[in-house]
Amino acid sequence: MNKVVTFGEIMLRLSTERHLRFSQANKFAASYGGGEFNVAVSLANYGVSTEFVTRLPNNEIGACALKEMRKYNVESKNVVYGGDRLGIYFLETGAGTRGSNVVYDRANSSMATIEQGEINWEDVLKDATWFHWSGITPAISESAAQECLRAVKTAHTLGLTVSCDLNYRSKLWKYGKAPKDVMPELLQYSTVILGDLDTAFFMLGMDQVEPDYQDEKSLPKLYDKLFKTCPNLKTVATTLRYSISASHQQIGGVLYDGNHLYTADIKDVTPVVDRVGSGDAFMGGLIYGLINDTIDKQKALNIAVAACCLKHTISGDYNLITLDEIERLLSGDASGKVSR
Amino acid sequence: MNKVVTFGEIMLRLSTERHLRFSQANKFAASYGGGEFNVAVSLANYGVSTEFVTRLPNNEIGACALKEMRKYNVESKNVVYGGDRLGIYFLETGAGTRGSNVVYDRANSSMATIEQGEINWEDVLKDATWFHWSGITPAISESAAQECLRAVKTAHTLGLTVSCDLNYRSKLWKYGKAPKDVMPELLQYSTVILGDLDTAFFMLGMDQVEPDYQDEKSLPKLYDKLFKTCPNLKTVATTLRYSISASHQQIGGVLYDGNHLYTADIKDVTPVVDRVGSGDAFMGGLIYGLINDTIDKQKALNIAVAACCLKHTISGDYNLITLDEIERLLSGDASGKVSR
Amino acid sequence: MNKVVTFGEIMLRLSTERHLRFSQANKFAASYGGGEFNVAVSLANYGVSTEFVTRLPNNEIGACALKEMRKYNVESKNVVYGGDRLGIYFLETGAGTRGSNVVYDRANSSMATIEQGEINWEDVLKDATWFHWSGITPAISESAAQECLRAVKTAHTLGLTVSCDLNYRSKLWKYGKAPKDVMPELLQYSTVILGDLDTAFFMLGMDQVEPDYQDEKSLPKLYDKLFKTCPNLKTVATTLRYSISASHQQIGGVLYDGNHLYTADIKDVTPVVDRVGSGDAFMGGLIYGLINDTIDKQKALNIAVAACCLKHTISGDYNLITLDEIERLLSGDASGKVSR
Amino acid sequence: MNKVVTFGEIMLRLSTERHLRFSQANKFAASYGGGEFNVAVSLANYGVSTEFVTRLPNNEIGACALKEMRKYNVESKNVVYGGDRLGIYFLETGAGTRGSNVVYDRANSSMATIEQGEINWEDVLKDATWFHWSGITPAISESAAQECLRAVKTAHTLGLTVSCDLNYRSKLWKYGKAPKDVMPELLQYSTVILGDLDTAFFMLGMDQVEPDYQDEKSLPKLYDKLFKTCPNLKTVATTLRYSISASHQQIGGVLYDGNHLYTADIKDVTPVVDRVGSGDAFMGGLIYGLINDTIDKQKALNIAVAACCLKHTISGDYNLITLDEIERLLSGDASGKVSR
Amino acid sequence: MNKVVTFGEIMLRLSTERHLRFSQANKFAASYGGGEFNVAVSLANYGVSTEFVTRLPNNEIGACALKEMRKYNVESKNVVYGGDRLGIYFLETGAGTRGSNVVYDRANSSMATIEQGEINWEDVLKDATWFHWSGITPAISESAAQECLRAVKTAHTLGLTVSCDLNYRSKLWKYGKAPKDVMPELLQYSTVILGDLDTAFFMLGMDQVEPDYQDEKSLPKLYDKLFKTCPNLKTVATTLRYSISASHQQIGGVLYDGNHLYTADIKDVTPVVDRVGSGDAFMGGLIYGLINDTIDKQKALNIAVAACCLKHTISGDYNLITLDEIERLLSGDASGKVSR
Amino acid sequence: MNKVVTFGEIMLRLSTERHLRFSQANKFAASYGGGEFNVAVSLANYGVSTEFVTRLPNNEIGACALKEMRKYNVESKNVVYGGDRLGIYFLETGAGTRGSNVVYDRANSSMATIEQGEINWEDVLKDATWFHWSGITPAISESAAQECLRAVKTAHTLGLTVSCDLNYRSKLWKYGKAPKDVMPELLQYSTVILGDLDTAFFMLGMDQVEPDYQDEKSLPKLYDKLFKTCPNLKTVATTLRYSISASHQQIGGVLYDGNHLYTADIKDVTPVVDRVGSGDAFMGGLIYGLINDTIDKQKALNIAVAACCLKHTISGDYNLITLDEIERLLSGDASGKVSR
Repeated sequence: MNKVVTFGEIMLRLSTERHLRFSQANKFAASYGGGEFNVAVSLANYGVSTEFVTRLPNNEIGACALKEMRKYNVESKNVVYGGDRLGIYFLETGAGTRGSNVVYDRANSSMATIEQGEINWEDVLKDATWFHWSGITPAISESAAQECLRAVKTAHTLGLTVSCDLNYRSKLWKYGKAPKDVMPELLQYSTVILGDLDTAFFMLGMDQVEPDYQDEKSLPKLYDKLFKTCPNLKTVATTLRYSISASHQQIGGVLYDGNHLYTADIKDVTPVVDRVGSGDAFMGGLIYGLINDTIDKQKALNIAVAACCLKHTISGDYNLITLDEIERLLSGDASGKVSR
Repeated sequence: MNKVVTFGEIMLRLSTERHLRFSQANKFAASYGGGEFNVAVSLANYGVSTEFVTRLPNNEIGACALKEMRKYNVESKNVVYGGDRLGIYFLETGAGTRGSNVVYDRANSSMATIEQGEINWEDVLKDATWFHWSGITPAISESAAQECLRAVKTAHTLGLTVSCDLNYRSKLWKYGKAPKDVMPELLQYSTVILGDLDTAFFMLGMDQVEPDYQDEKSLPKLYDKLFKTCPNLKTVATTLRYSISASHQQIGGVLYDGNHLYTADIKDVTPVVDRVGSGDAFMGGLIYGLINDTIDKQKALNIAVAACCLKHTISGDYNLITLDEIERLLSGDASGKVSR
Repeated sequence: MNKVVTFGEIMLRLSTERHLRFSQANKFAASYGGGEFNVAVSLANYGVSTEFVTRLPNNEIGACALKEMRKYNVESKNVVYGGDRLGIYFLETGAGTRGSNVVYDRANSSMATIEQGEINWEDVLKDATWFHWSGITPAISESAAQECLRAVKTAHTLGLTVSCDLNYRSKLWKYGKAPKDVMPELLQYSTVILGDLDTAFFMLGMDQVEPDYQDEKSLPKLYDKLFKTCPNLKTVATTLRYSISASHQQIGGVLYDGNHLYTADIKDVTPVVDRVGSGDAFMGGLIYGLINDTIDKQKALNIAVAACCLKHTISGDYNLITLDEIERLLSGDASGKVSR
Repeated sequence: MNKVVTFGEIMLRLSTERHLRFSQANKFAASYGGGEFNVAVSLANYGVSTEFVTRLPNNEIGACALKEMRKYNVESKNVVYGGDRLGIYFLETGAGTRGSNVVYDRANSSMATIEQGEINWEDVLKDATWFHWSGITPAISESAAQECLRAVKTAHTLGLTVSCDLNYRSKLWKYGKAPKDVMPELLQYSTVILGDLDTAFFMLGMDQVEPDYQDEKSLPKLYDKLFKTCPNLKTVATTLRYSISASHQQIGGVLYDGNHLYTADIKDVTPVVDRVGSGDAFMGGLIYGLINDTIDKQKALNIAVAACCLKHTISGDYNLITLDEIERLLSGDASGKVSR
Repeated sequence: MNKVVTFGEIMLRLSTERHLRFSQANKFAASYGGGEFNVAVSLANYGVSTEFVTRLPNNEIGACALKEMRKYNVESKNVVYGGDRLGIYFLETGAGTRGSNVVYDRANSSMATIEQGEINWEDVLKDATWFHWSGITPAISESAAQECLRAVKTAHTLGLTVSCDLNYRSKLWKYGKAPKDVMPELLQYSTVILGDLDTAFFMLGMDQVEPDYQDEKSLPKLYDKLFKTCPNLKTVATTLRYSISASHQQIGGVLYDGNHLYTADIKDVTPVVDRVGSGDAFMGGLIYGLINDTIDKQKALNIAVAACCLKHTISGDYNLITLDEIERLLSGDASGKVSR
Repeated sequence: MNKVVTFGEIMLRLSTERHLRFSQANKFAASYGGGEFNVAVSLANYGVSTEFVTRLPNNEIGACALKEMRKYNVESKNVVYGGDRLGIYFLETGAGTRGSNVVYDRANSSMATIEQGEINWEDVLKDATWFHWSGITPAISESAAQECLRAVKTAHTLGLTVSCDLNYRSKLWKYGKAPKDVMPELLQYSTVILGDLDTAFFMLGMDQVEPDYQDEKSLPKLYDKLFKTCPNLKTVATTLRYSISASHQQIGGVLYDGNHLYTADIKDVTPVVDRVGSGDAFMGGLIYGLINDTIDKQKALNIAVAACCLKHTISGDYNLITLDEIERLLSGDASGKVSR
């Protein structure tokens, strides 16, 4: 049976409700989330055995994050404890012409101050089949980047499939290193990469490109450059997102396996209840599709796109969607009928 | 003066707010509703003298339901008491590509366990002019079906107009009878039927049809079959609903009186605040139109469609809309101007 | 440096949440607002030194309104105290085909019962460069109208730019005077007028017109009539609003300076979180543009339209929008990207 | 069968939650209440046929008040409509050493501007046995005082028992008349008076007294003076209230019938959830006791005190308490056991 | 290492907030609980390996209950699925002289309709050291009683310590059996019993007693009768509860081991935030004390009493208290200092 | 006219509502506070001209804190901007035997990373008469301690009265210095000290004492030692607090001026709505009393104690109490009467 391990930071998310601006709020909805954990929740929802590895502070807020992992059936036995605080992000949810706004307060978090050797990766990964990380972890601190590299190398050595969501965040990468100093080595070991082509090229320190995702001819050539740079790469995928407004998005996807380019139809997503975590929903759907032998690549991409669309209808970071609901959407029923 | 009596079950409705999934909610909005009661509230809003007959448990939750009837000016003097519980339904309101979800918990409710003879229908209906029931009541239990039949027969004998909303619910009908075992006799006495043609044929045990509601030629022929089967039938109407998404619906309507086919223009309904009860709003508008001598059939259908559209903008089961607001919409003002 | 003084009434705003009808609400969101104060908040957000002059009751509710002025950095040192109550308005926010509904309860407010001489306008306006009033103040009571006239005259004498938002409210004007009895004298001193042409002609007692805002040829001629009637007029502007539904509006604008007609493109605004105060947001943007020497008239109009659009995404009366956000929208980014 | 009619003002009550000060609140809990209506709700809860007469504005806020009457089973068929607004009171609930604070905003309400002849008292009272009014109504305006007098006289003529809760409010009586100008005539017709002796003497323009409610000897002599002044008086009662703090009260009562002095033991009331309306709860209990032939005067007083105590545990103006709960408390069970 | 298994029903708990009566509430706080599950949560909080066995419906509400088990770290791997509904209880939290009120709606729940053989008790209990049940399970239905007996017998055979909280609920036991028909056999296998002596005698069908818990002489004699009836009994304990009011309780405890009577001092508990589950908190503390070799019986009783007291300060059914907090209270610090 | 400047950190306060534990909360009430800012709010409420100096991050959360200063009329013109984050503290409000719990997350805040020279103290203090600081600022970081010393020295040089609330927090002082390394120099310049004697001796590195605050003989001798150590000291005061439980406190006070010992009666405070900031309320009352020539020292102490008591009835950090309310309490009216 498959088991997926994801590694990263889980944060306290403090969001205003009903589109209020920060200055109008006298309360914050409190939930938890983070790219790699969100992927784990997706997979747990789909019935995949999943574990999340992170570092939590030894205080009540850290304990809340742990309870959240348990609630959503994500194994937490290899979580390590230390450091002073759980990272926080503040979210103001936009509407129409006003975009959402994120204020990060995650510096010096327990995860950012992780120390080498705290996690025994051989032990953690010994019965796993897939390891997932994202470009956020190497962006938060030098020690997090190093721990990520140790994890990726161990996973590679143990023969796990390694996936990475590039997840470039310009507000991070503040500790003195640029993506191109760190990401190339990390991506060497990756089997699956999710991200825009221009982001991938930027992170790998390659010449910038302006991919035309409608041009199914030129696209494989660009992807091939990635395959050349990343020796273990087997699959690259990209979420296509066209933003009409903060409340109306259009979502599609592209997947390339070195031979064939797969594309998924663009779907309208309106209204947007909460778009944070929709990329992680794509990633979760993609892993679910790729990990199952009975699902072909086109279907895997379709699942990823459907999961991403459905995530937009859900408050909070997680994609609380069942496989049934994904299937219903894929079978053409986007009609929002009341089930009764 | 007209007086309408409706008969059915009123339930406690427990819904998550702001599109939360059940697993995210730590509170439920509590309201009350049920198809036949919702029709009564609509009519009371329009100034029609209205009474609701049901069976309530003798506990505090039943008392809340009774207060709700009073609040909305629906006469409750013939409510009977007994049984153990008020039926409940849980509602998770969808958005966009994610449909709403209803979890019924109404088995063994006070209404489902009603015993024959508890209601003196001659007495209840003696000063009424219209009796309304729906396909939900015969679906919840054998005894409810029998009581419904007694009511319908008495109403017919006393010369009341009898209307039925077919309201097929696949999650009900669990007590051993199928619609075709029960509905044909009940529908014999009905003067007005609201429902899809295929549902009607299915419930009457007739050959299935696939009506094309755009085809104004073939439609009367299909309706004529209903008229043949239901000897007292005078009016059949159907809500036309096209679901673009859970947040965007298109609503129209068709009415046939045995001679003439009336149609109402399709209206866009977006966003959908709450679609539960929108069929009941249509029914309430239709009865209001048909019961008033000064309103012709086309206008009655238009009112029904407008009421149905407006209901989608209101939280909860009831159509808390005034005649003024319906008139404003019918006169072309869907613009949502602020009235000040 | 510029300093803008606005004069009018601030009210307690009691609104139902989540589109609830009044009869469904057991709580009201409490905020504060009023046309001229809303303009002041806009300008304070943009960094303009701003003062609001009004009359407040000497009770705890008045004290809350004062705290609100301070919170949003609007100078309140010339507020006068007296009278019995803060005006109130109740708001039920519509959706789709159901418009919002305002119930005014502002009669006999402290502002409506202002007495002549309570405000020393020479003192208040001595270091200001701009005075703003609206057609609401002369509509609430005779004494408010007279105080408004004293203010306008003083501002004119002191050489301030005087702007007026016509703001016709049919539910006001109940004290025995019609707009044409009062507004012509007041508008004589105005340098900037915001309002529909038909409203302006109506308030000035002129022959009614039916302006075609798409007809850029005939429009200047109509505006020229205004310029003839109002000797100090330099700029007239109109918000163009097309209501698709309560949840979907289209916003544009027109500005005429006696020589040239400027127009701004129509923008889609959907969903509408709260449209109350969107006209005040237009006015605030317009003043900001006109008061800054570095901003040309086309840009000033564009800012006004963008501010008006963005206001629709914010709960409450105020346009809590930064100049950055306006610039981002003007530069074409209506995409609602998450900033992180 | 008995029927009680009460007459007075019902207001919108806007209260902060969880002991927040006004300046901290961004929402108000909205409910409805007023002394005489609260008495009606108490009696309806006890199963007494009850009607409330008032004047409501013809707007949505007035409609909410009407729905509230219906919800609590208080007959509203003789409510008249007119005037501009529903009276409002703002409530900040204290705790411990900080008392609760009420800000009235009830001037110019529909009830205060009632016009003579709007209510046909002969018709209203023809099948009633008891009429209840309070000292609030003659305090709000001259026309309300006059209408109250017409009601009291008619009730007296028709042979009804007339009860009055003196309810002195120093923040009212602002229209030019003092209690002693108005109350003596009104109290002439009263059969039952509830209030402190010093308040009664003050309102009747008699020499002030300082009653010692522990002195069961001197008390009858003071009460006898009242009986001499009010020719129809049969029963006087007083709530005894000792305030330890806003959260801890001690409640007892005294009743005198011209012959015998009845006293009820002092009960501790802590914590106080909401004390507004606790006097009305006493009044409701007293009427219930006196109206029932099977209840003696001592029991009537005990019921009044128990109802008053229990009201302190309930949010809002009304005493939502059943007879069972009163009996349980009277039988000595104040233990707060969970009923399950 | 110790492992405790508890068996019983988990319900959806719907409670009004801020002491509202049912008729005032338009929302319910939704949480989960049930006597035996509450004990499991207590033990999990103390770091004991704990598992809960129950039967859940295969719907979204059942899934919520499952997530709750996971969140609080209670093993759920042997939960079985079937039946139609999760049991519900409605809770209105009292204050002062008004007691809390529970409305049960748990008939026909998945747990009540459990079928024999669904749970493989040998497998479930094979690595456990302690089995806990309560008098609620045999009270809900015949099949639940039988399953409970199978569990108790298996636990006894496998050599587990078996504890029972008598938990008499007069609103249950409706299926045709009285406690004395069922409980004697079940209690035969119990090693630890928690409950009042009179309840124990009643359930065992013995002559009723009126124990005086202050009389440390006569008490052992009464307890000895229990020991004679229950051959495996080693420890009996009783929570002493004196109810001053719904907001003020006094809590103590008694423990008897066949030789020695242990008593714990009475502690004042005020205010009471939520008393539901406080008996389960006592039970959880008792098991924790008895299961640990390093804790003597006096200390075990003290822990049980302290846990019970602290539970009253926590909303919801569970005793979310740490061992540290219990120790702090036992060491005399009830002062409620802010820890900072 | 007097002007008071206070200096310190303002934090975002995130608290659970209704006594919920952190793990139960899915939202946090968001407010702002900090010892020295709380003192400033108290004084502003009393009508004293007050300014708060701090360092805020240049983000939306910092902007919220700034709006809070404005709302409560505390001058903010010398606030400096820089650093990454606003400090946060999480608060779980206890009840009864369960104390409140604070989780600090204030490391690396903008205030903690203040750099020397950012604040021009000569300029800030030039028109002030009083400077207030507390033992928290030197506890958070070395640079904050140094900036505090610069402020204190400048205030002393300019002839301001300097007051200090010792405010020892064991969870702070983590940067390598102990109080005795830093506080002695700071306290040299202080004219007024608020704090326990043992805390004062500890912070000054003197031999520990165990003061008996009931022993009015020995107390002056202990205080005299402080006067010897702190050459500018004129007044020492101590809040006396006896904790019965988290919900019941007893508050008194002692003041010594080098000659005479003043004491204030112990007052019962129950229930406790929120005790955070009650020491700051004492400090605010003390400064108000000492700064006014017309208030003698006994009255100053009484005001401080009354303010402290009243603060316990208010949610949030601030003492939102008027002088009127303090006077009412001092005049013996703790009865919590409704003011109406």
